[in-house]
Amino acid sequence: MRTSIATVCLSGSLEDKMTAAAAAGFDGIEVFEPDLVASDLSPEEVRSRAGRLGLTLDLYQPFRDFEGVTDDLLAANLRRAEARFAVMQRLGVDTVLVCSNVGTATVDSDDVSAHQLRRLGDLAAAYDVRIAFEALAWGRFVDDYRRAARIVALADHPAVGTCLDSFHILSRGHDPAGIEEIPAEKIFFVQLADAPRLAMDVLSWSRHHRLFPGEGDFDLTGFVAHLLRAGYAGPLSLEVFNDTFRQTDTARTAAHAFRSLVWLQDQAARRLDAGPLTRIAEAAPPVGVDFVEVKAEDTGEVEATLDQLGLTFRGQHRTKPVRLWSGGPARMVLNEQHAREVEPVVAGLGLVVPDAAATERRAHDLGVQPVHRRSQVDEARLAGFLAPDGLEVYLVDAPGPDAEPTWVEEFEHGLPRDTADSFTGVDHVNLVHSWAEHDEAVLFWTAAAGFDAPAATQVASPQGLVRSQVVRTPDGRVRLPLNVAPAVSRDYPEHVALHCTDIWAVASRAAGRGMAFLPVPDNYYDDLAARFGLDPGLLDRLRSAQLLYDRDGAGEFLHFYTRRVGRVFFEVVQRLDGYDGYGADNAPVRLASQARVDRVERTARESAAGPAAGARGRPRT
Amino acid sequence: MRTSIATVCLSGSLEDKMTAAAAAGFDGIEVFEPDLVASDLSPEEVRSRAGRLGLTLDLYQPFRDFEGVTDDLLAANLRRAEARFAVMQRLGVDTVLVCSNVGTATVDSDDVSAHQLRRLGDLAAAYDVRIAFEALAWGRFVDDYRRAARIVALADHPAVGTCLDSFHILSRGHDPAGIEEIPAEKIFFVQLADAPRLAMDVLSWSRHHRLFPGEGDFDLTGFVAHLLRAGYAGPLSLEVFNDTFRQTDTARTAAHAFRSLVWLQDQAARRLDAGPLTRIAEAAPPVGVDFVEVKAEDTGEVEATLDQLGLTFRGQHRTKPVRLWSGGPARMVLNEQHAREVEPVVAGLGLVVPDAAATERRAHDLGVQPVHRRSQVDEARLAGFLAPDGLEVYLVDAPGPDAEPTWVEEFEHGLPRDTADSFTGVDHVNLVHSWAEHDEAVLFWTAAAGFDAPAATQVASPQGLVRSQVVRTPDGRVRLPLNVAPAVSRDYPEHVALHCTDIWAVASRAAGRGMAFLPVPDNYYDDLAARFGLDPGLLDRLRSAQLLYDRDGAGEFLHFYTRRVGRVFFEVVQRLDGYDGYGADNAPVRLASQARVDRVERTARESAAGPAAGARGRPRT
Repeated sequence: MRTSIATVCLSGSLEDKMTAAAAAGFDGIEVFEPDLVASDLSPEEVRSRAGRLGLTLDLYQPFRDFEGVTDDLLAANLRRAEARFAVMQRLGVDTVLVCSNVGTATVDSDDVSAHQLRRLGDLAAAYDVRIAFEALAWGRFVDDYRRAARIVALADHPAVGTCLDSFHILSRGHDPAGIEEIPAEKIFFVQLADAPRLAMDVLSWSRHHRLFPGEGDFDLTGFVAHLLRAGYAGPLSLEVFNDTFRQTDTARTAAHAFRSLVWLQDQAARRLDAGPLTRIAEAAPPVGVDFVEVKAEDTGEVEATLDQLGLTFRGQHRTKPVRLWSGGPARMVLNEQHAREVEPVVAGLGLVVPDAAATERRAHDLGVQPVHRRSQVDEARLAGFLAPDGLEVYLVDAPGPDAEPTWVEEFEHGLPRDTADSFTGVDHVNLVHSWAEHDEAVLFWTAAAGFDAPAATQVASPQGLVRSQVVRTPDGRVRLPLNVAPAVSRDYPEHVALHCTDIWAVASRAAGRGMAFLPVPDNYYDDLAARFGLDPGLLDRLRSAQLLYDRDGAGEFLHFYTRRVGRVFFEVVQRLDGYDGYGADNAPVRLASQARVDRVERTARESAAGPAAGARGRPRT
Repeated sequence: MRTSIATVCLSGSLEDKMTAAAAAGFDGIEVFEPDLVASDLSPEEVRSRAGRLGLTLDLYQPFRDFEGVTDDLLAANLRRAEARFAVMQRLGVDTVLVCSNVGTATVDSDDVSAHQLRRLGDLAAAYDVRIAFEALAWGRFVDDYRRAARIVALADHPAVGTCLDSFHILSRGHDPAGIEEIPAEKIFFVQLADAPRLAMDVLSWSRHHRLFPGEGDFDLTGFVAHLLRAGYAGPLSLEVFNDTFRQTDTARTAAHAFRSLVWLQDQAARRLDAGPLTRIAEAAPPVGVDFVEVKAEDTGEVEATLDQLGLTFRGQHRTKPVRLWSGGPARMVLNEQHAREVEPVVAGLGLVVPDAAATERRAHDLGVQPVHRRSQVDEARLAGFLAPDGLEVYLVDAPGPDAEPTWVEEFEHGLPRDTADSFTGVDHVNLVHSWAEHDEAVLFWTAAAGFDAPAATQVASPQGLVRSQVVRTPDGRVRLPLNVAPAVSRDYPEHVALHCTDIWAVASRAAGRGMAFLPVPDNYYDDLAARFGLDPGLLDRLRSAQLLYDRDGAGEFLHFYTRRVGRVFFEVVQRLDGYDGYGADNAPVRLASQARVDRVERTARESAAGPAAGARGRPRT
């Protein structure tokens, strides 16, 4: 179906918005009146620019507080409308959104509203304009799309139809099935927005917290199905008021918005198994983590930590400054290529997928940016794409059971694979986003990469609350907690969690090799005793090994953390009896401990930063 | 009364919080359990540190989900409690907050809850601990403070009393007058929080949007009055869960919090005209703006703009690199002292007050930081203090009618005062804060400087929504719109608005002197015609003079803007027939135009920034 986006969704000037909408792939836009008023382009220039960009101007919006009024006010409102119709004629837009009256309605009557809309229809027809009447969720009298449709039917005027907005319908809990009873030719326009289920006043919810399809809690797939059964064939247009999207990069948000609409059409097409909807390639979700890549100018300190944790050095790449470590099937790639002045950072993630070519096609269909990995003819070629935060995601076809992928053979002069150790793989990779990237990231992982996004949580850090949204594959084999760092924190670290079957042994070996664990305060163990009534013997063992503990129904969770190196640290975990969480109750303790360590290290760095610092060419630590 | 603050209000480690609370002036703290658990100080060390800092540990909190449960759960809950009592004993805290059960209550009975609290009281007594039972606004069965008090009365145990939290009571709309019916000896603790009136679920409202007293919509003064009439003599403690305060500088937030509590006590003392409350100096609100100070390494470009606007150069300060311009009673001070690499910025504000010494005392009592203005013996000494965003605020006693303040005589080699011009003063000064400073700034202007804070608004900018809170003196003679810039925008400018009685003449003179007005798009005037049905003649005049227009009941508003110089620009306004706003509907047009100009200027600057740039020693523009 044709796609459109309201200019109010995006940041920047009207020109920026038009350029970005066209570049993202939209067929048209809704012109939000304040964007036109604030623009220094004349309506004729906007029209001609849209033409050059290949965009249609699908709707002019909004026209407010028209119907349900006294006669004298009606006359003034018709005058107001006529001035707008004149602007629309200059723009070449043929449909105007008329919202149900919020501010000035005093007459609660379908007949009066219908009569007044008929008068407006007459005036509109003279300008070749159509009226799309919409029930706002907070309209004074008309706040239900079924009533708006009834008034439109009563108005019985060819230039008067209705506009359906998923937010106004679903936020009120109105049954969208009634859409199928509206004659198709009377549905002049459709606006789509998702939203999280929030218990707050619907006006603030609508103005600040709308989301793109697939990011909230509304069943938009079902909504689109009703539209198609009703026979609607016009554009699907996004109208998303969101404080974050209004601030983020225009082109990027437009691409993100377009992705949501492509995904939604594909979802609806699958449910309906027909229809004029865009379909995209299907791809099964990942079945495992192939590798995690850490990049740095000098990866030495990271490798020292891996060594202390008990991973095995598997070799240096035969053509690139890249090294491989593994612990059982958990593989860490350490990359010093093009990494001048880069502190250790999680730079890439290899995912094992049932069909890499299919996943690559799906990502392409969703407008995800591909990445190219340099390789020689005799090396494995990995398909890949970029996540919104710049993480490189590579796709690897599943090798046989217990087999290693062929790219491992490109590493030389290392030790053989250690199959006896207790590491069983990468348990999860914790990624960190800014607030501006978060919604886009969640949609990316779910729509493009086949992850699920269960309910989010919040954990307290010394610098404020951290929003945490886990995305995981349906079978739980790949888990990515996505954290939104507090706005004030810089260099918030990410981490890689390795799963093992004997954490006591791993911790003891690491301690024996001199690893500096992230310290766990004594008070934590006292609290643990009070919360879980743990056996004193276990408590003592936990305390002396500096392990953290959590419980979840029958399941238990043991874990510990390394100190950070640059922007990365490691966690080792052991899940017992089906524990399914991430130790969220322990996160505040971990974050407070990291803040203490960071402060001590910062002080040490600063006191060392005299004129002689760096004289021995030592890297910053 | 004794003052206290819950550690959860502040960012940082437990040590940081304790240090900051003591430095701000609090008598004690509530220990928020997760802060202790995450700390590497033992309970004994916390106790001894508090002693050294002169802080009492007033409350241990929270203990959740205790009463209204089945017998087997009660046994487990008593075991949980006992472990906490042991920690409290080590801390030396004698009161624990027990919240009404949210998660595990299954028995809705006052008798059962009372019986279970009595059991808890017996256990507590053995540890010299008291139970302060609090009704959470979202408690499963107990969600009203009157029911909590009834249960406490039924429990009839010396170690069992109640805790009253203003948020839980006022958010539910419960009448706080019932507090006076609770026996004083049964009110074990009081927690205070303000909040904006929000229509949202009370749990999210409480966890994220609480504010310090004086910053929200609750009548905390009345609340405190009820407490005193009840005979309560314990501490007044702040418990404010707020996402922003959890992120901002610990010491600064503590000082801000303490200020709110001092202010609240003073307000309550005035209402009661008695009581054990802290009183502070009274001071009448400002009656005018004495001057606005702009600071820059080179103020030349700002002065050129003032000249084009028609202000008069009044002279150079006889001992400092400071220059004075005036237009009628509007005085601008241009300061190049200690301004290396400073772009033009609003740095100071002189306020005319009825009694400068009284205002200075009040600010001092509220812990506001004073500033010192260098002066010689024969120069005026201005008292002053710092606003939260670093603005220097100076206080000047009102001179006689039409007289200029004596400090004006320190300026030499300028022109005499022009009394014939149409400028009538500074209309308003628009200041910009980050989101982190905003609540503190509003409290500062209202509590310390005698301003009112009417309802806030939001305006759309190309970079996102701008929150705007006007503070104004009760008579409207001093007005300061405080804007919160979108998080992504840098160098968001501030402006000074001058009022005149003939804006057409001022605009025409400025145009004649070659001033570059901020351009107003043509579409704006088309929209104005549609919105207000303006007379075509007036519309043409507005368009050709590039003036903006607004209407407000009978009143009309004419205004225009200069381009920005550094972080400052100017507005000229004329209010007609009692117009009382700031042209908020025009703000999006202004912001979009500024963004266009900024972009052009940035491009020009960048293309000029070749190797030869700066070769002639021209300042950055």
